[in-house]
Amino acid sequence: MPWRFSIELDDRNALPRYLQIAQAIARDVQRGRLSPGDRIPSSRSLAQQLSVHRNTVKAAYEELAAQGLISTSPSSGTFVSSRLLDVAGQPSEDAPPPGRALGFDLPPDGAPDQVAEAWRTLHRAPYSFTGNDPRLLPLASLARAYRSALRSRNRNLLGYQFERGHPRLVEAVRSMLIATRGLRTTDGLMITRGGQMAVYLAIAALVRPGDVVAVEEPGYAFGWLAIQRSGAELTAIPVDEEGLCVDVLEARVLEHPIRAVFTTPHHQYPTGVTMSPSRRRRLLELASRHRFAIIEDDALYGTRYERAPALPLASADREGVTLYAGSFSKLFAPSLRLGYLAGPDQVLERVSRIRPLIDVCGDGVLELAIAELLEDGEIERHARRLTRVLGQRRDALLEALQQHLSAVLEFRVPSGGTAVWTEVDPEIDVDRWSASALERGVGFITGRFFFLDHRHHSNVLLAFERMNESEMREAVARMVQALPSAKKSRAPRNRGS
Amino acid sequence: MPWRFSIELDDRNALPRYLQIAQAIARDVQRGRLSPGDRIPSSRSLAQQLSVHRNTVKAAYEELAAQGLISTSPSSGTFVSSRLLDVAGQPSEDAPPPGRALGFDLPPDGAPDQVAEAWRTLHRAPYSFTGNDPRLLPLASLARAYRSALRSRNRNLLGYQFERGHPRLVEAVRSMLIATRGLRTTDGLMITRGGQMAVYLAIAALVRPGDVVAVEEPGYAFGWLAIQRSGAELTAIPVDEEGLCVDVLEARVLEHPIRAVFTTPHHQYPTGVTMSPSRRRRLLELASRHRFAIIEDDALYGTRYERAPALPLASADREGVTLYAGSFSKLFAPSLRLGYLAGPDQVLERVSRIRPLIDVCGDGVLELAIAELLEDGEIERHARRLTRVLGQRRDALLEALQQHLSAVLEFRVPSGGTAVWTEVDPEIDVDRWSASALERGVGFITGRFFFLDHRHHSNVLLAFERMNESEMREAVARMVQALPSAKKSRAPRNRGS
Repeated sequence: MPWRFSIELDDRNALPRYLQIAQAIARDVQRGRLSPGDRIPSSRSLAQQLSVHRNTVKAAYEELAAQGLISTSPSSGTFVSSRLLDVAGQPSEDAPPPGRALGFDLPPDGAPDQVAEAWRTLHRAPYSFTGNDPRLLPLASLARAYRSALRSRNRNLLGYQFERGHPRLVEAVRSMLIATRGLRTTDGLMITRGGQMAVYLAIAALVRPGDVVAVEEPGYAFGWLAIQRSGAELTAIPVDEEGLCVDVLEARVLEHPIRAVFTTPHHQYPTGVTMSPSRRRRLLELASRHRFAIIEDDALYGTRYERAPALPLASADREGVTLYAGSFSKLFAPSLRLGYLAGPDQVLERVSRIRPLIDVCGDGVLELAIAELLEDGEIERHARRLTRVLGQRRDALLEALQQHLSAVLEFRVPSGGTAVWTEVDPEIDVDRWSASALERGVGFITGRFFFLDHRHHSNVLLAFERMNESEMREAVARMVQALPSAKKSRAPRNRGS
Repeated sequence: MPWRFSIELDDRNALPRYLQIAQAIARDVQRGRLSPGDRIPSSRSLAQQLSVHRNTVKAAYEELAAQGLISTSPSSGTFVSSRLLDVAGQPSEDAPPPGRALGFDLPPDGAPDQVAEAWRTLHRAPYSFTGNDPRLLPLASLARAYRSALRSRNRNLLGYQFERGHPRLVEAVRSMLIATRGLRTTDGLMITRGGQMAVYLAIAALVRPGDVVAVEEPGYAFGWLAIQRSGAELTAIPVDEEGLCVDVLEARVLEHPIRAVFTTPHHQYPTGVTMSPSRRRRLLELASRHRFAIIEDDALYGTRYERAPALPLASADREGVTLYAGSFSKLFAPSLRLGYLAGPDQVLERVSRIRPLIDVCGDGVLELAIAELLEDGEIERHARRLTRVLGQRRDALLEALQQHLSAVLEFRVPSGGTAVWTEVDPEIDVDRWSASALERGVGFITGRFFFLDHRHHSNVLLAFERMNESEMREAVARMVQALPSAKKSRAPRNRGS
C-alpha cells in the first residue's frame, strides 16, 4: 500500500508549515511507516494532497535532505535515504566500510566534532535558540540587485576576478568604514567570504605553527578552531563586565610572547559585553609595546538596541597593529558570505597572496550587486529594520525569562548582539536540561560550547534571532516543562565531563 | 587645463576597445600627463566623448582599478591613485609606513610571492597566453538561472546553508558523476568554492604538519602552495608522455612513507599529457598497498578535442583511496567558484567539519541556480560550444607556432586541456624572451613557474583560452619579433636563477 501523508497541518501551530510537514515525515521514518529506499510523493503531488503551495513542500524536502533522511534524484524521484545515520552521526551497520585503505590514523578531531554535531542537532529543533530567521531576509532587494548587476552585461564579472574584490564593492565598503567607523584611509581592504574567512585569512597571514594566540573565554568555538588549524596554541583570557581582562592578558604576555589576540570588543560572543574605553586603550598600548597583532572580530557591529556603538579598536590604532574583520551576514543575509578584512596594507598584501590558494577569487556578479545595494543605502535600511525587529525579540525573551525562569537564571540585559548569556543555578544540570528540552522541540546551547575544555559549565546561551515573539514565549514555556528532569540529586556524583 | 583623452579607437586593432582605452590612460599616467590625485572624467562623459557604450568605459576603468592605477569613490568621482605602485609591486616612497608595530618577522613568502606577482603582470598583458576569455562566458544562461532561483521566493536560500551544498546541486552533480564518470554511488560528495577549495580541503582533512605529499613536476604551483600551507613537505615526481612516473613514486615511497599524491591524470597541467591505463592501475595498487591517498585534480575534465576521455582514477578505485576534485570553472564560468569533492564518505564527513572554519557555507541562490542549469543540460551544452571554440583556438595556435617558431620550439599536440607546453631551444633565454615579449604587449609563462626550484627552465606554456584566432596569430608574430633579444651570447655566463 503506498504511503499516505498522515497529519493535518495546524495553522495555530507556531511551527512553520514546511517544518510541520518535515517532522511528520521524519516521524514516519522513525516509526518504520517509511523504510530506507521507499519512494515518497513528488513535491507537486504532496502539495495538491495537502492544499499548500509547492514551495512549502519543497522547503520541507530540503529540510529532510539536510538531515540526511531523504534524497532526490532529478530523473527518478524522491526516496527515503538508503543509508540512515543513527543519532550519534555514525553510519548504520549496513553501510559499506568507507575508505578502507585510507584507514590510517586521521588527525584527531575530538571536541570540535562533538561541538559541530551537537550544534547541528540543536539547530534543527523546531524551537531553536540558534541560527537566524529566513522570514526576515531581504529577498526582493537582492533579486533587484542581481538583476541590475546582470543587466550591466559585463561578462568580465563571470571571469577570474580582482584579487581584493570588485573595485566598486571595495570602494563602497571603504567609504562606509571611513565614514561610520573611523578607519584610516591608508588601510588596505579586502573582500572575503564572510567574517569567518576574514578571520581565517588574518590568522593564516600572521601565525606560524607553535605561535601562541590569546582568545576570549567564554568565546566563539568556530573562531578557535580556525586559529588552531594554523597550528597555533590558544591561551584563554577571561571576560568580565568590561570585556577582555587586559590585566590577565598582560601577565600572560610577560610569561610568554603571543603573536596575536583574537577579540570581539562589540557585543562579545557569547557574553554580549562591550569592552570599556579604558580597556581598549590599554589593549592597544599592550599590543604596540609587545608587538602582537589584534584581530578584531566585529561581525556583530550594528546589532545594538540602545546606545550608539563605540568605534572599533581599529579606529584608535595609531600603530597599525589591528586587523579588522567585519561581515554583512548578520544584518543582511548569511548565505551571501560577504565580509571584509581591513588593516595595514602590508599585511593585506600578504593576505591577498593566501586567499587564492583557498578560493581563487570572489563572485563578481554578487560583489557588484552588493556594491549597488550599499551605494543605494539599501543595506543600511534593511539593517535598521532588522535591528528594530531583533530589539523587540530581545525584549520579549527577557520578559519571558523574567516571568518564568528568574528562579534559576541570572543574566545581564545585552545592549547589542543577538543573544542573552545566562548563569544557571548550579543545582540544575544544564546539559540534562538541554537534552530534555530538545525532546520537547526546543534547542539551546549550554556552557560547554563556549569554554576551551568543553566540559560542563552552568551557562545557557539563548539567541533571539530565529524565533518571533510568540514562538519565543512558547519555547520558554517548554523550557520550564523540561526543568524538573534537570534538577541534580542531593548527593553529588562525579559525572566527569 | 583639464585632461583630454588623446587617442583614437581603432577597430582594426585586435585589442578590445576597453583595453585600448585602459592602455591610453595608463600611458598618460606613465608619461605624467596625468598625476596622482587627478580627477578623470566620469564613465558617462568619456563614453560620450569617444562615442562608445558606457559599459566599455566602465570595463576600462575596472581594468585600471585592478591595476591600482585609479580609484573610484561613489560620491566624488574617479581619480588617479594617490599611491602608485612601482613595477616591483613596492609602495612608492611617499606611502606611509604600514603596520609599524607589526614589523615583527612575518613568515617568509619567497618564491610564491614572485610567482604570484609575475603571473599578475603577464595576465594583464593585452595579448596574454594566460587567463580565460570573458567574451565566451554564458551571461544569458546565468541571468536566466538566477532569476529562476530567485523566483522560487525561498528565503531559506539566503540563510545559513546546508553543510555539503544545496541538496539539489549535490544530487545533480552526483548523478552526473555516476552517469558520466563512473563514480561510486556510495561516495560522499560536497560542493566547494571551485576546484581550488576542493583540493585545499582534501589536504586539510588528510595531512598533518611534517607529512610528505608527492606532486607532479612540472606541475601546478597554486596546488603546491595550498599543500604547503598545511605544513606538508613536497616531494616532486617527474611526468613523462604517459603521465606521472609511477616507478619513481614507488621508489620514493619505499624510502619514506607519503601521506598523499596530488595528481592530474587528465590533461596534466602544464604538460597536457594523459596518464596511461597501465600507470593508472599501478598507481591505485601502490596507494592501496602503501596506504596513501590519491588526490585527483580533474578540473580540466571535458576540455578534450579528439578522443573520448578516459574515466577518472576514482572510477576504478575499489579501496576508497581516491579523493576526486572537479570544477565548473573551466567549462562554465570561473567567478562562480563552483567545484566539488567526492570520495569516501568518512573523509567527506571530516572535510565538512573543516569547511565551515574557512567559509561557513555556500551561496544558496547560486547553488540552486547552477542545479537548474545542470538539470536542464544547459551547462553541458555550453561546455560543448566552448570546447569547440577552444579546439579551433588550439589549432590556430599550433599552426602559427609551426609556421613561425618551429625552429626554436618543440611541442606535442595536446589532446585536451587549455595550453601547449613547449620545449625551447636552450640557446634562447626564455625569461629574457618573456620580458621582451611583454614590452610588445604579449604575456606568456616560462618554465620556472612549473618547477619546485622556480629556477630557469627552457620551457614556455602557451594557453589558448583567452585570445581568439586572430589575436593569437598577432601574439605569435610579436613573440617572433621579441626573439632576437633573447638569444644567449656564445660565452655562457652564470646567471643564477
